[in-house]
Amino acid sequence: MPITVDHEQRRQKIAGIATDIIANKGLDGVTIRQVAAMAGFSTTIVTHYFATKRELLMYTWRAAASRTRSRVDRVFSDSPCDIQGCLEALLPINKAGIRDWKVYFAYWHVASVNSQFAKEQRYGIKLTRNIIRRVLKNMVHQDLLASKTDTLVIAKRLLIYVQGIAIQTMVNRYEWSPKKQRDFLENELGSLLH
Amino acid sequence: MPITVDHEQRRQKIAGIATDIIANKGLDGVTIRQVAAMAGFSTTIVTHYFATKRELLMYTWRAAASRTRSRVDRVFSDSPCDIQGCLEALLPINKAGIRDWKVYFAYWHVASVNSQFAKEQRYGIKLTRNIIRRVLKNMVHQDLLASKTDTLVIAKRLLIYVQGIAIQTMVNRYEWSPKKQRDFLENELGSLLH
Repeated sequence: MPITVDHEQRRQKIAGIATDIIANKGLDGVTIRQVAAMAGFSTTIVTHYFATKRELLMYTWRAAASRTRSRVDRVFSDSPCDIQGCLEALLPINKAGIRDWKVYFAYWHVASVNSQFAKEQRYGIKLTRNIIRRVLKNMVHQDLLASKTDTLVIAKRLLIYVQGIAIQTMVNRYEWSPKKQRDFLENELGSLLH
Repeated sequence: MPITVDHEQRRQKIAGIATDIIANKGLDGVTIRQVAAMAGFSTTIVTHYFATKRELLMYTWRAAASRTRSRVDRVFSDSPCDIQGCLEALLPINKAGIRDWKVYFAYWHVASVNSQFAKEQRYGIKLTRNIIRRVLKNMVHQDLLASKTDTLVIAKRLLIYVQGIAIQTMVNRYEWSPKKQRDFLENELGSLLH
């Protein structure tokens, strides 16, 4: 009987290993050979799913971005006007968030010298901005924000604050505790929205 | 007659080449061998100045940070209350700024997985925050800001805005023209200070 292989599961396993290498050692440590060894696969199997290191890195980046958006979506589906909660879900506020932000740092560097990754990154920023905007629109709809609010401008500013806070946190996690990140964000939201 | 060698000039030449490689190809491209070839030096000469790749990278990072601070200092010595001008000097608003920000992106990634670089980065953020704070204190002194202003808190927030704007710009330079960066900053300063 042929062995049934769950290809999507394998792809995710390989990307998960690449993520761990990036988060612990940095991009330099990611090689098809190393990933294969850690997964217990031959390099042939790995290159069946990812023909090049670049393909593997792109998939790994998309997986991190997708995980972050899923965290926001969970908050959003519970409380569609919870702007504080949705933005917190974007921050490196817990282990999963910190791991994904390490991947983002790696990709910001790659995107700054590679146009294909830069394009992907612009697309990711646009998606994230739209998620924030969706919450703001709900708030307008529920009279929690003035109807004349320019939700695009506010969403851009909020994303900039989130990215700035994330950088501070990633550089100095002792100073930027989850509580400090939340408080800082709350303060910015207070200044911006009220 | 012995040939006089300007060691500091050589060190800077080597670091300048490393900077160009980082900004054009990424950190991966930096090797002692490659840098030596581009400088027209033997690898022995390069390793005389930088025993390891890590030493070269640390020096290169410090040089970028130091160039950025020099740009701010020039604005500051001309007009010690020009907060807009000093913050603009921190942004990727011209070729020199963009080149240095490419180095920062590379180092954020390295710092996220290397404690020695992370420590250096925290120190750099503190220095930059203090430069911003110095301007704010001058503004208080000249009655341009209320005397009760918490200059540390405001400096932290401003640095976060600058880093957030820089990320947007580095990812999408077509959208984030120098004018847009300036306008955005002016708007944030308006909300925060007045």
